[in-house]
Amino acid sequence: MAGRRNWTRERLVEGVRGGDPRAVARAISLVENSDPLAAELVRELYPSTGRAYAVGVTGPPGVGKSSLIAALLPHVRAQGLSVGVVSVDPSSPFSQGALLGDRIRLADHFLDPEVFIRSMGTRGHLGGLAEATLQAVLLLDAAGKDVVFVETVGTGQSEVEVIGIADTVLLVLMPGSDDSIQALKAGIMEIPDVIAVNKMDNPAAKTMLTEVRSILALDPDRAWRPPIVLTEAARGQNLEQLWKEIGAHRTFLEQDGRLEERRRRNLAQEVFAVASARAKTHLERAVSDDAELRRVLDSVQRRELDPLSAVHEILDKVFHIDDGAASG
Amino acid sequence: MAGRRNWTRERLVEGVRGGDPRAVARAISLVENSDPLAAELVRELYPSTGRAYAVGVTGPPGVGKSSLIAALLPHVRAQGLSVGVVSVDPSSPFSQGALLGDRIRLADHFLDPEVFIRSMGTRGHLGGLAEATLQAVLLLDAAGKDVVFVETVGTGQSEVEVIGIADTVLLVLMPGSDDSIQALKAGIMEIPDVIAVNKMDNPAAKTMLTEVRSILALDPDRAWRPPIVLTEAARGQNLEQLWKEIGAHRTFLEQDGRLEERRRRNLAQEVFAVASARAKTHLERAVSDDAELRRVLDSVQRRELDPLSAVHEILDKVFHIDDGAASG
Repeated sequence: MAGRRNWTRERLVEGVRGGDPRAVARAISLVENSDPLAAELVRELYPSTGRAYAVGVTGPPGVGKSSLIAALLPHVRAQGLSVGVVSVDPSSPFSQGALLGDRIRLADHFLDPEVFIRSMGTRGHLGGLAEATLQAVLLLDAAGKDVVFVETVGTGQSEVEVIGIADTVLLVLMPGSDDSIQALKAGIMEIPDVIAVNKMDNPAAKTMLTEVRSILALDPDRAWRPPIVLTEAARGQNLEQLWKEIGAHRTFLEQDGRLEERRRRNLAQEVFAVASARAKTHLERAVSDDAELRRVLDSVQRRELDPLSAVHEILDKVFHIDDGAASG
Repeated sequence: MAGRRNWTRERLVEGVRGGDPRAVARAISLVENSDPLAAELVRELYPSTGRAYAVGVTGPPGVGKSSLIAALLPHVRAQGLSVGVVSVDPSSPFSQGALLGDRIRLADHFLDPEVFIRSMGTRGHLGGLAEATLQAVLLLDAAGKDVVFVETVGTGQSEVEVIGIADTVLLVLMPGSDDSIQALKAGIMEIPDVIAVNKMDNPAAKTMLTEVRSILALDPDRAWRPPIVLTEAARGQNLEQLWKEIGAHRTFLEQDGRLEERRRRNLAQEVFAVASARAKTHLERAVSDDAELRRVLDSVQRRELDPLSAVHEILDKVFHIDDGAASG
């Protein structure tokens, strides 16, 4: 791998801008490793971003999110659009190297220069999943990808910061995803823009379709009514329709300045999420490195100091903020 | 409610210490409202805590966590133990006022002075759910409750900070909780200490039992093998066995200093979670109140400033930290 050493900052910027998959791969590796060079690349490339359309794909593990993305690719490519896929799902088959075997010819896509697929390890990333994902999406955007899929696992709110950058959020469920249905009903999971009920061959798929419909019917006033598509990723069934529904949501957003408004909100939320994650990392390091702060925790354990006063001392020492946590 | 005005700090401390339910209720209301007096009470009462045994009850919405807790109460009371219940689950029937009707005579427990049940609204709490829950548990502990149940909704990791204070974590599932099963299998959800598969009358309950067993068998080396109990909260079936299994976990922890070690870890994690949440709130307020920081976000939107440099500027301004987010 002598080539590694030859990636100067200039060559990386130029390479990503030209859509060179090796440059993009190298840049995303820098992101994974929290390398400061990644932030420099993003800073330099940021003015050339904003063209890609980002589709967030979320849902519980095991519902077939990766298969669904793989099966969508031919339909995206049929429109002449180039594609980037970033998976930040540790349980994703994209992360396994071996991928989906012969069920879906994902290997075909690996040979297509207009398709870039990458799973990212982000354990220990300084700015958390949100920062790593944001950087990867911006790099793929700068590399000229027309559509960027972001895959993340989730059954509640923890995935929100990962797909916070998405223009369209696709939730994938399967028959048996009762927990997700209950979470949607209880308002614990946010209503997505498009829903796929995968594994439609399962006899319970139609029941689930009815359930999801009845949940969405509880709020008939929303401007966008999320379409629900029964799919079978393994056999490519209804994938064209699913891609059309994602396109319909895009068309909806592109009217009346909605897309711009959504992106403004997304960006502000992402910046906030990354800043929060960075602050948390900073705090974690300060507490583990600082003998005095460790002594504070010890005195909490001995019940000499209460936990909230400990929080107050830590925040004061680490961030120089007095938030009144233990005032009085 | 003239009595409200008569709650001085001294009378509250005295009232909570004496187990007066009105004092406890008033103190928890102060917690809900992020009243600084709540932190003062906790500070004063903290040295008298550490006696209560905390049981965290988590699981997806709709599986019957509240019913299960209610059905456990007679078994806890039969041992002469006093009980506190805090629910921080917005979808919990405890939050609805009406409770469980005639299915479970929870109203009976309301008349029992040794049982204190309270659902907490924590939306907008400065220190997040973690802080509010921690304070409520400490107050119930100081009030002399022998056992404190903490109910929270969750299907992944977001609930961890709420039940982070628990000595024993009980996960409640039901037939159809396939998403949770997949999350356990994928390592996205932490393995709890005890598992209840509720709604055992459902023919799929035994299949789920087998599935959970096979997941736990993947890791045969853990010192504590989580027991799985089929329950039917609505008819009180196997609740005695469930309570025995929770007791068995307690006995296990009480050997070889495990309980002390777990509480040390829990307390450190809780202090860290509360400090993180406070830092996040501080950040949120700073960004929304500060015209300069809002201008930073605007320039991100116009692609004049990249998001990571914006994060850097915000962290520098709000926390005076330079974490190298945009160094170079």
